[in-house]
Amino acid sequence: MQEELLMIPGPVPVIPRIREAMSRPMISHRSDEFSAIYGEIVDDLKRLFQTKNDLFVLSGSGTCAMEAAVGNLTGITSANINGTEKTKPQSSVVTIVNGKFSERFQEIAVRYAGRDAVTPVRFNWGDPIELEEVKKALEKSSDPEVKANANANANATRKIVTMVHNETSTGMLNPAREVGKLARKHDAVFVLDCITSIGGDDVRVDEFGADIAIVGSQKCIGMPPGLAALSISERAWDLIAENRNRPYYQDLLAYKKSFGKGEGQRQTPYTPALPLFFALHEALKVIKEEGMAKRIERHRRLSNAVRTAISRLGLYLFPTLNEATDYSNTVTAIKTPLAAGITDELLRGGMRKKGVIISGGQEELKGKIFRIATMGNITETEVLRTIAALEEVLAENNFIERVGNGLEAAEEVLL
Amino acid sequence: MQEELLMIPGPVPVIPRIREAMSRPMISHRSDEFSAIYGEIVDDLKRLFQTKNDLFVLSGSGTCAMEAAVGNLTGITSANINGTEKTKPQSSVVTIVNGKFSERFQEIAVRYAGRDAVTPVRFNWGDPIELEEVKKALEKSSDPEVKANANANANATRKIVTMVHNETSTGMLNPAREVGKLARKHDAVFVLDCITSIGGDDVRVDEFGADIAIVGSQKCIGMPPGLAALSISERAWDLIAENRNRPYYQDLLAYKKSFGKGEGQRQTPYTPALPLFFALHEALKVIKEEGMAKRIERHRRLSNAVRTAISRLGLYLFPTLNEATDYSNTVTAIKTPLAAGITDELLRGGMRKKGVIISGGQEELKGKIFRIATMGNITETEVLRTIAALEEVLAENNFIERVGNGLEAAEEVLL
Repeated sequence: MQEELLMIPGPVPVIPRIREAMSRPMISHRSDEFSAIYGEIVDDLKRLFQTKNDLFVLSGSGTCAMEAAVGNLTGITSANINGTEKTKPQSSVVTIVNGKFSERFQEIAVRYAGRDAVTPVRFNWGDPIELEEVKKALEKSSDPEVKANANANANATRKIVTMVHNETSTGMLNPAREVGKLARKHDAVFVLDCITSIGGDDVRVDEFGADIAIVGSQKCIGMPPGLAALSISERAWDLIAENRNRPYYQDLLAYKKSFGKGEGQRQTPYTPALPLFFALHEALKVIKEEGMAKRIERHRRLSNAVRTAISRLGLYLFPTLNEATDYSNTVTAIKTPLAAGITDELLRGGMRKKGVIISGGQEELKGKIFRIATMGNITETEVLRTIAALEEVLAENNFIERVGNGLEAAEEVLL
Repeated sequence: MQEELLMIPGPVPVIPRIREAMSRPMISHRSDEFSAIYGEIVDDLKRLFQTKNDLFVLSGSGTCAMEAAVGNLTGITSANINGTEKTKPQSSVVTIVNGKFSERFQEIAVRYAGRDAVTPVRFNWGDPIELEEVKKALEKSSDPEVKANANANANATRKIVTMVHNETSTGMLNPAREVGKLARKHDAVFVLDCITSIGGDDVRVDEFGADIAIVGSQKCIGMPPGLAALSISERAWDLIAENRNRPYYQDLLAYKKSFGKGEGQRQTPYTPALPLFFALHEALKVIKEEGMAKRIERHRRLSNAVRTAISRLGLYLFPTLNEATDYSNTVTAIKTPLAAGITDELLRGGMRKKGVIISGGQEELKGKIFRIATMGNITETEVLRTIAALEEVLAENNFIERVGNGLEAAEEVLL
């Protein structure tokens, strides 16, 4: 029997050499050997991030790193305001929200900075970001007290803006470069969730001006879930150093302190999830062997093949674009043809019976869309198998008359 | 060549069947299959914890779970105090400190509750806990404002006490049952770090009255690092539910909400580190096959063998005991014979050359002690190899005249 094929936006299928890397015997996490492995991982990830900033790996999911970013930048702090000591949010946060994961940033920001200090710039899930709205929010976001406090310390940048680069919940690629420019213009620290884009798309962390950028392990890097990495700019460090309420497990200063330069000195503050570090080490070798340019091109080609097939089959892509946004190059979100009587259960259940697992919509999009990821070490073969299964399900449910058109469309792109 | 032998208090050596469990293909973390695996893991861990409380697994290290415990119980909250709304620590925390890991609880408590709300009960590292001191601290710990606030809500228990059960930094077993009794008497919520005791020692979470108990994966459970589990009592839930500043990745209410009862409903709020869950599933099978009683007896026998050999060799155990404390049954801390000219580097470096990795002292104990762990699936063979290597190093450095006495002493215990 054919193995079940995971075409969801993480966990992605993991090729044997990466899975097998996990079964090696344990080593001490304070050994020179671990230090060497971690050092290589960090160097390779910096290349993948296209950053010169500091970079660390957390033993936790992407959400763990999202909290690390926001929590380290936006503690509640006791500050001297107008001559008296008050407890104040350390920062004002603008959260750009147009999907599930940007909503998560909003939740985390409220928990750390308090509701009053957070300004969400909301769009419907799947609608594009209007840069003018972001600009307005950045102009308004400094409340006078926070500003007074910021003036007391010239080094501190006290505005944060968060965005999800590649929003898997909607299949949308948000405008990182443009929001990065706005952030710089308004002296804001830019937190960019690249959890599902780095390793599969052309993410230029330094060029985009992302002060903190995040990647997850189980997406375009092509390894199992359990690790996340994030890069931190000097501007972000300035703010972090002043925060008295940093999270503990995700305390980025502890990660910085543990990461020395000498032999044996590249350590983590708490015990790392060793087998996952072994897998990441191997996954990054796989990426180097393929080459970043080729890898990005492959991700674009595969997602383009899915989109082309979808259109040829008479289905519609979910996201609405404007001049600033684009379709994701790592996951495609498609409207479920409910009007034709095809429910989520018929569609995804039918695919499941054929051994292909795809994702449904989340929360408010539940039952309304389905999603096909093309991340990590996925190849043409898996994409064609997925399109073939989709066509069969659509034919069985009388949405299309005969199978073949979708595959033909995909092949035109792929070959 | 013989494989390097890890005799450190985590990561422990992992037997092949547990390591190999990690290399299976990925599955969706929202599948029925994952739900079934997670459900079995939770049921098995409850038996290991000897608890009927809720229990969840976090994708993170033991420290991640320590923060989860303290952070969920002790947020800064806005409370109505004497008729006005003020920001106040939600709880007063008594931290019992007599080693590195109890010091960590102290650090986390200060970060979440603020320095004024935390009362450390300090003993020298390696000195035993004086229960009278704990009692005094619990009596004093309620400041009047916090108390007034607690009275406003009869359900809230606003005192927390933290302790490390098995302190690996000093080789000490702290009095969990006795402190549990004191906690109950003073209506305090008892947080017990059993990271290095559960799975190897007789930890009766409910009998001890531990409201939150924690275990780590890379210790007595015998699997790789990267997971931690914690149990939560109803009394703890009452306090957690009121906390408006819970950590996000470690938000225990989110874990509770994600863990349903029906088929397919046992999920985690964020993507779990799948390969480590596969390993934990297998490690718990290994534990069931051995039987808990036998496993505890083995851990006691192995640590007893180490202690007996140490004494026969003329070395001294590090911890000072009183009637309430005991030597750890999972790790032995020994004074480095510095007076005889044997430094940490000579001793542990010599062991390393023979392929046996043991731990040194941490922080203030650096260079002063060495530690031999006997955790997880370690057997007589590894203990004898370790003692043999130690004897050789001691002989090479003229601390003992001939090898054999230590091994003989260990064998007397083991056979």
